[in-house]
Amino acid sequence: MAYFPEVADKIRFEGKSSKNPLAFRHYDPDKVVGGKTMRDHFRFAVSYWHTFKGTGADPFGVGTTSRPWDVSTDPMQRAHDTMDAAFEFFTKLGVDFWCFHDRDIAPEGATFKESCDNLDNLVSHAEQQQKATGVKLLWGTACLFNHPRYQAGAATNPSPDVFAYAAAQVKHAIDATHRLGGQGYTFWGGREGYDTLKNTKMQQEREQFARLLHMAVDYKKRIGFTGQFYIEPKPMEPTKHQYDSDTEACLNFLREFDLMDHLKLNLETNHATLAGHTMQHEIRAAREAGVLGSIDANTGDELIGWDTDQFPTNVYLTTEIMLELLQMGGFTTGGLNFDAKVRRQSHETVDLFYAHIGGMDAFARGLEIAQAILDDGRLMQMVEERYAGWKGDFGQKVLQGVKSLEDCEDHVLRHGEPARASGRQERIENLINEFVL
Amino acid sequence: MAYFPEVADKIRFEGKSSKNPLAFRHYDPDKVVGGKTMRDHFRFAVSYWHTFKGTGADPFGVGTTSRPWDVSTDPMQRAHDTMDAAFEFFTKLGVDFWCFHDRDIAPEGATFKESCDNLDNLVSHAEQQQKATGVKLLWGTACLFNHPRYQAGAATNPSPDVFAYAAAQVKHAIDATHRLGGQGYTFWGGREGYDTLKNTKMQQEREQFARLLHMAVDYKKRIGFTGQFYIEPKPMEPTKHQYDSDTEACLNFLREFDLMDHLKLNLETNHATLAGHTMQHEIRAAREAGVLGSIDANTGDELIGWDTDQFPTNVYLTTEIMLELLQMGGFTTGGLNFDAKVRRQSHETVDLFYAHIGGMDAFARGLEIAQAILDDGRLMQMVEERYAGWKGDFGQKVLQGVKSLEDCEDHVLRHGEPARASGRQERIENLINEFVL
Amino acid sequence: MAYFPEVADKIRFEGKSSKNPLAFRHYDPDKVVGGKTMRDHFRFAVSYWHTFKGTGADPFGVGTTSRPWDVSTDPMQRAHDTMDAAFEFFTKLGVDFWCFHDRDIAPEGATFKESCDNLDNLVSHAEQQQKATGVKLLWGTACLFNHPRYQAGAATNPSPDVFAYAAAQVKHAIDATHRLGGQGYTFWGGREGYDTLKNTKMQQEREQFARLLHMAVDYKKRIGFTGQFYIEPKPMEPTKHQYDSDTEACLNFLREFDLMDHLKLNLETNHATLAGHTMQHEIRAAREAGVLGSIDANTGDELIGWDTDQFPTNVYLTTEIMLELLQMGGFTTGGLNFDAKVRRQSHETVDLFYAHIGGMDAFARGLEIAQAILDDGRLMQMVEERYAGWKGDFGQKVLQGVKSLEDCEDHVLRHGEPARASGRQERIENLINEFVL
Amino acid sequence: MAYFPEVADKIRFEGKSSKNPLAFRHYDPDKVVGGKTMRDHFRFAVSYWHTFKGTGADPFGVGTTSRPWDVSTDPMQRAHDTMDAAFEFFTKLGVDFWCFHDRDIAPEGATFKESCDNLDNLVSHAEQQQKATGVKLLWGTACLFNHPRYQAGAATNPSPDVFAYAAAQVKHAIDATHRLGGQGYTFWGGREGYDTLKNTKMQQEREQFARLLHMAVDYKKRIGFTGQFYIEPKPMEPTKHQYDSDTEACLNFLREFDLMDHLKLNLETNHATLAGHTMQHEIRAAREAGVLGSIDANTGDELIGWDTDQFPTNVYLTTEIMLELLQMGGFTTGGLNFDAKVRRQSHETVDLFYAHIGGMDAFARGLEIAQAILDDGRLMQMVEERYAGWKGDFGQKVLQGVKSLEDCEDHVLRHGEPARASGRQERIENLINEFVL
Repeated sequence: MAYFPEVADKIRFEGKSSKNPLAFRHYDPDKVVGGKTMRDHFRFAVSYWHTFKGTGADPFGVGTTSRPWDVSTDPMQRAHDTMDAAFEFFTKLGVDFWCFHDRDIAPEGATFKESCDNLDNLVSHAEQQQKATGVKLLWGTACLFNHPRYQAGAATNPSPDVFAYAAAQVKHAIDATHRLGGQGYTFWGGREGYDTLKNTKMQQEREQFARLLHMAVDYKKRIGFTGQFYIEPKPMEPTKHQYDSDTEACLNFLREFDLMDHLKLNLETNHATLAGHTMQHEIRAAREAGVLGSIDANTGDELIGWDTDQFPTNVYLTTEIMLELLQMGGFTTGGLNFDAKVRRQSHETVDLFYAHIGGMDAFARGLEIAQAILDDGRLMQMVEERYAGWKGDFGQKVLQGVKSLEDCEDHVLRHGEPARASGRQERIENLINEFVL
Repeated sequence: MAYFPEVADKIRFEGKSSKNPLAFRHYDPDKVVGGKTMRDHFRFAVSYWHTFKGTGADPFGVGTTSRPWDVSTDPMQRAHDTMDAAFEFFTKLGVDFWCFHDRDIAPEGATFKESCDNLDNLVSHAEQQQKATGVKLLWGTACLFNHPRYQAGAATNPSPDVFAYAAAQVKHAIDATHRLGGQGYTFWGGREGYDTLKNTKMQQEREQFARLLHMAVDYKKRIGFTGQFYIEPKPMEPTKHQYDSDTEACLNFLREFDLMDHLKLNLETNHATLAGHTMQHEIRAAREAGVLGSIDANTGDELIGWDTDQFPTNVYLTTEIMLELLQMGGFTTGGLNFDAKVRRQSHETVDLFYAHIGGMDAFARGLEIAQAILDDGRLMQMVEERYAGWKGDFGQKVLQGVKSLEDCEDHVLRHGEPARASGRQERIENLINEFVL
Repeated sequence: MAYFPEVADKIRFEGKSSKNPLAFRHYDPDKVVGGKTMRDHFRFAVSYWHTFKGTGADPFGVGTTSRPWDVSTDPMQRAHDTMDAAFEFFTKLGVDFWCFHDRDIAPEGATFKESCDNLDNLVSHAEQQQKATGVKLLWGTACLFNHPRYQAGAATNPSPDVFAYAAAQVKHAIDATHRLGGQGYTFWGGREGYDTLKNTKMQQEREQFARLLHMAVDYKKRIGFTGQFYIEPKPMEPTKHQYDSDTEACLNFLREFDLMDHLKLNLETNHATLAGHTMQHEIRAAREAGVLGSIDANTGDELIGWDTDQFPTNVYLTTEIMLELLQMGGFTTGGLNFDAKVRRQSHETVDLFYAHIGGMDAFARGLEIAQAILDDGRLMQMVEERYAGWKGDFGQKVLQGVKSLEDCEDHVLRHGEPARASGRQERIENLINEFVL
Repeated sequence: MAYFPEVADKIRFEGKSSKNPLAFRHYDPDKVVGGKTMRDHFRFAVSYWHTFKGTGADPFGVGTTSRPWDVSTDPMQRAHDTMDAAFEFFTKLGVDFWCFHDRDIAPEGATFKESCDNLDNLVSHAEQQQKATGVKLLWGTACLFNHPRYQAGAATNPSPDVFAYAAAQVKHAIDATHRLGGQGYTFWGGREGYDTLKNTKMQQEREQFARLLHMAVDYKKRIGFTGQFYIEPKPMEPTKHQYDSDTEACLNFLREFDLMDHLKLNLETNHATLAGHTMQHEIRAAREAGVLGSIDANTGDELIGWDTDQFPTNVYLTTEIMLELLQMGGFTTGGLNFDAKVRRQSHETVDLFYAHIGGMDAFARGLEIAQAILDDGRLMQMVEERYAGWKGDFGQKVLQGVKSLEDCEDHVLRHGEPARASGRQERIENLINEFVL
């Protein structure tokens, strides 16, 4: 263990008054909040791609990061070194989970066969590392967007040969995830969309995508993989439009192609805001449809129109997320995966620790606030009172579907103008600030 | 007929070289394009609310418009005068259809009963006017957003009393539409959403909305109304979020609550762009799902974040819309309703003519261009060739669902790296400009 | 004093543990922070327009608010009642300042003369109220955007007659402000822009605007008014584009027309974000140019494209604002004016108290955090160290303008590749959270 | 000449009815419009970076383009081959100008000295190619954003060593431009801004930037370079905020640091829209300030929040640009540089021709339409009439600064309520469509 000398042993919880930038001030993994440890609430994961493979490149500049594991001239050696660094990082940070794309952990080979061999090799290495450290795999996935062959889509490509390539790659990525005991597998359709509708058969492409998912569902059963499948909404970037643009677009797709029983959603804050929604909205929509699976924890800059994938440090955001999660009863297979990257100017390895510590502390505080709001009960009571009328006889019968338009007219003629109640938004914002400030 | 002295008789087609601002340069109602008259392609409608009831008020200023029909101190007289002006306008402009909200044509009364009586009175007047002029009703709707009682939603209100009021109002608006031979009825959920999720039971509100729609479906059958029901997507404004935010959110809602057979979509350009989508995208998504019903023809300013509802004059936009419509086979019950308003500074009545003429000419030219592109065939051929691989044996079997991930891997191992084809976006844009310029 | 029975006497500071929604939890007016009382730091003002004249109307709905002072059928009586309510509110809330537009406090008359008389009448009433309560005027202004005559601009109107009208109105609004001992006077150019460039002489309109400001500067001297003039940036809404679109557009305008010595800026959060900037950016730009004058305290919804004018409750925002203000040395003539309105659904008078209390508490907490960050010193030290190189000989000579490109080349040839330093953004965000959480 | 076998000789003008995708349909270089050839109106330039160095990489994928000149393993050989390909392309396309960054044409070396030598070497090659082909240099520039040393800015870097490096690089880039007879030199500050204000001394950084520009102005005089200096506005991307965010921010900067006489603006459509402005607005603002220099011809997607740099094919856009240019009297040193890139899926070399042909044709048609609108005269007359009042005695005296607020009040008392005139926006949009359709 030598890649992160700035952290000799392990990041520790030192409490709110600590001024040590390499300590937790709020995240205490074994602290019990609402009957469960923080560790079990969050199931934090580190994303392999940003943290170990991210270079700091942007559309106007090459990479900036200093990464001592990325120096060997031999690609396979670099891959092994990177994995060693990753597990050192997981251990020192104290997270229980990690996530990867196939091509993050093992380099693309000259042929498909060679790529698969490379992947198998690194999966073996990961197996050993998992065993040695106790770190587990939250989910795996296939990178179906980086290589030029996917320039016009993977499953949604105008060429069935590319579809086949994507499908074959997915097969091996599921295998890898299965071997590593992954608790889930994610489909992110970064090229599953279009750059211009004018050259695109949209519905055929959506059908192609559904075909791949059904194949994967069948394969999963065949091999006995019991992890959860996830689909991940994002509206644009890299393409003009992706078919899984937001939660409701995903739900529509899953319903249309009879996939609701087989996939849940993996939601990300920055994808939500690029779609014009708050993260709370996307979570609410998914959980009320019964398909909230996992969360990519990051944040965007709402004044900026691309995926900045920043680490989440805003406690209002983490409180909102935790309020929804607590009300859902918490994760089952999912977790909070930091799909976030350090800024291009934060090019040192110690910045990776600062970033994750800040995110974990912000979620820890968000959890405490959310639990306190629920324990206090006033907010939830205000909501219940707001809808109390629907518990009456007329409201219940409307919801049961046994009232007609004529019945409603009769109700109006008997009761006249309805009373209005203030929405109390300002009061509610103050109430939340009671717990935040 | 005296409200529009600037147009003595009727707007005429004078051809491309005309410099008369009160003539059509492209819209010739009886000209046949692709086997159908322009009149029958477009089924143009004027929206009562913007054109006759719009005042030019905005969030920072009161109304500006000079409207000679809006001068009587007696509300019912004003309503009658307004309707006379409207039918004079329809006739002079030469459109075949109109659209209204219940409260556009008749003022809200002191009681629900009085409001209904007012509406009945004006519906009778409209019946006479329709008979006298031959102008028909494209669709009617209920205004469930203007009155304070709907401040927290109509069907989605936290109070079942407001739900009942909305339902009763819908009943009468459907009755009015039925009496006037309306070919459709539209639900626009301008308050069916939330200002803050923190005081909102989202799923219950969505269920309430579905209940109202089912009641309306049942009522429609009961009274023998055969017009088409439409739902109209819009993401925000006036609320923070509306549940029918875009086409896919509507499709998800209709599928979830078993309403796909009963409602189609009424799409609007400015609502599409506020949701971050092109109008072409929304139309494509709706028509490929089999539920494109009608179109609210307007345009927004993509650099501005609210509903500017401008008249559509951009021929690229009208060409895209007409390309989709022609490929769908055209409207059945729907039409192109100018849900557009003159700018606040265009306060004279003649501006209403300029605005509609410009929109109709832009659509006429868009139709001609779209038909020419289809007749030419090169664009569609490029698309067919792009997807030609899927007509082969392997592609067909994938689409039929009889291939597995293992089959795909086998395909890759036999065929190796797939070929790439240019997407040719620039070539396609030039090709379209061949017909536009 | 009877308009706000929900608050018998005065809103009191009850401390952090209070659960009373009508008490301050952080704002303690006489508490000293950094050598000055909270009262003197903030100089809180209530805006007359939103709080007493706001109706809750939006583009899709009429007003919703219940306002007992807005019931008389006589406009002048209503104006007097409204002012009584306003001073009752100021007193009960415990703010020291208010702000108004001429047409907020007195109704437009049938002639210009009558409008002036109405204004004089109400100014006399305000004088008495100010004397009785000790509440002072932060700034006054003229409403040059609501009336149809200003549909195409006030000072920037294509008609010099409208320019004259605006100028005459400004004269009286300055007189009113002067009589009331106003500490400033604000110019907000809500119609000083264009809806389409195609009918607009932009530079002439900008010159017209500059002429009005110079006239006002001259007039101010003539009458001995010593209050500060402010200009207020906003990019759009109600027009497509306003000439004072953001801080730098205002600075460019002031420099171009030799007005830098005569006007400072009044900045608003929601205007900043509509222009694509953070409020911190706008404040920094103004203060570093030496022209930060006053602040309109509100917040917007960054996912929404219009001016939502919400009350500010986000402590990250208030901390950023207070950090900038403290580093500037605080306000002189300016203050924090709540240019914010309760949500349309918050229609009761008690919501006005909740809203202001929440904003004042959020600023109080932001002040404490900002002062603590400054006292701690680590953040400022990190910034100083980041730029330390510029204190060296070479850096100083560059800044003094005595180095040439050749000197720089020579420096490079002697020193080689420069060292890079991490920007430490994540570390800094964590550091700020040390004080927020 | 062998890199573009798809074009044997030269792209020719074949007229509107041509269906040859490798011919001009509107751009006829020697056609005279408004007294000047199309060639002289446009002064089209090709940008070296996108067209010859662009790879098709995006934040989620590696390069896709097939570029036969980019195959040698020797960087200097690749640079020479690329330049040969570029001049073959210029010649076959028939453009008169090109533009480059220093690091586009010659690779960065191991030391600054080596980089300079590489640049000198390629400049010599370019000299020969210019002589052989007659193609001229529109402007040159230095790439101060790609290398990691510039991660925190070039001139605005917190380290004076990086400032020096940037200055030295600028010196050599000006030298190269001078040797090649460049008609201008552009400063684009892609890293001259901040990622977070919290670690940034904004005003000091702006002063640093101004120092660099003054050094360059002095140097230019010293070496006798007579080309025009340009600054190029862009609001964000790659950084959170750039100091030259839009036209007015640039004007403010130039005025503040006494640089108005030394720099003009190079405007780009996609940068304008990212700043929330139309391109017409930015051009108008710059030309009315007397500093419109050159134009980067491209277009963005207004629904997408990053720089898509698409080729401009929308004739409304090109018409607006040409209307402004014609009214300015056309370019002097500047020109229309296609700062645009083919889509990532358009990976073949022929796509480069399609793209440029489409852009040139769109501008040719825009020029014809703009000239026809000016010749027709009705539009300009409508504008003149709109402002006619300002030619009267009162208006003139206001503009001359000899009227006071009191004079204005007197004017109002004598003339009463001003008349209102319709802004006629719809009529104007129709009028423009008369010429477009």
